Amino acid sequence: MSIANYLPIWDKLTPDQQQRITAVADNIKAKEGTILHNSGEECLGLLLIRSGQLRAYILSDEGREITLYRLFEHDVCLLSTSCVMPDMQFDVMIEAEKDSEMWSIPACLYKNLMDESLAVSNYSNNLMSSHFSELMWLMEQIMWKSFDKRLAAFLLEESNLEGTLSLKITHEKIANHMGTAREVVTRMLRYFQNEGMVRLTRGTVEILDEKRLMQLQDV
Amino acid sequence: MSIANYLPIWDKLTPDQQQRITAVADNIKAKEGTILHNSGEECLGLLLIRSGQLRAYILSDEGREITLYRLFEHDVCLLSTSCVMPDMQFDVMIEAEKDSEMWSIPACLYKNLMDESLAVSNYSNNLMSSHFSELMWLMEQIMWKSFDKRLAAFLLEESNLEGTLSLKITHEKIANHMGTAREVVTRMLRYFQNEGMVRLTRGTVEILDEKRLMQLQDV
Repeated sequence: MSIANYLPIWDKLTPDQQQRITAVADNIKAKEGTILHNSGEECLGLLLIRSGQLRAYILSDEGREITLYRLFEHDVCLLSTSCVMPDMQFDVMIEAEKDSEMWSIPACLYKNLMDESLAVSNYSNNLMSSHFSELMWLMEQIMWKSFDKRLAAFLLEESNLEGTLSLKITHEKIANHMGTAREVVTRMLRYFQNEGMVRLTRGTVEILDEKRLMQLQDV
Repeated sequence: MSIANYLPIWDKLTPDQQQRITAVADNIKAKEGTILHNSGEECLGLLLIRSGQLRAYILSDEGREITLYRLFEHDVCLLSTSCVMPDMQFDVMIEAEKDSEMWSIPACLYKNLMDESLAVSNYSNNLMSSHFSELMWLMEQIMWKSFDKRLAAFLLEESNLEGTLSLKITHEKIANHMGTAREVVTRMLRYFQNEGMVRLTRGTVEILDEKRLMQLQDV
């Protein structure tokens, strides 16, 4: 499928704008585990996800991580154009959680299109607003939901994404998603295990009682 | 001063657009302590601060608060138009921390202007991006800075805003700003007092050792 199918406002662009995009858009393939940096020099540009699964996260000086959101087929990521946006002052990292393919529109071209096309500018506003809403939701979770509820919600989401109750994931990785330390995760998982909600084996968290995890997350 | 002085893109609007704004813009006066809700029915619109000091914050179901950012003279708040923006799904509260005056452009008019004017749309993108950057910064602080550093930074900022080392503020109020419980604030302030950095009296936190607080926040 061509890039036209992944950019919702394609039909609102002039033929000239469409042509400029087609001329420089890059088709990126990233193997599972690849980390796509997004810093000044190697700005990723606007990402249009064709397939796979990506994770956007931030990284502290000490190497701690927290997942901001995930990107799936037909999702569009604007934060990866931050290097050309004067008011976006932060670094976002992107990691391929599965083998992924995506279109990338160079950040400078995208910025030019924003400056000349009302459709592109308003589309960017929508993307930014929904990124903002997600970040707000995440902050509320962190501030106001206790860790057991957040962990229950995380396990259920993972299970949903992977289509299995037997999750191949390390405690370290869960800690990175949730912005906490491995020990904190391990302690809570052991509590879940004692309660009969999960079973822990090396590198695996098996969900035994989905219903109780759901009740826990909703309290 | 007219509203033209508070909207940075005024000169990029057509005379017709300027006239539509002038016709409906509201001059709001809010006494210190007034809470300006921002929910579906009484949407505040785009706020252009003329004088005073406002605080934008979110509120949990249990009544806990956290300060998102503050607004001063010539600041513009876009989040208060969220009721007409399809992708902004959250409620922000605004409180006058000092007697304040502001222009308000009704949210529906502002949305219409965004849909027809590239200048307004791009300006909104810039506002949204800088709100987003502030939220990101706040989240990093919460996730990665220990509470003593955050509290030191908060006291120094307050002292700077008020132009005094003797802050008239309750522990409850500090807790609301920082999204934590009063007890947590009291415990840390007592530690600061034992260390000779502050002196606590009823309703007052007096900064005794500004330099050490600065060192603490920067570690």
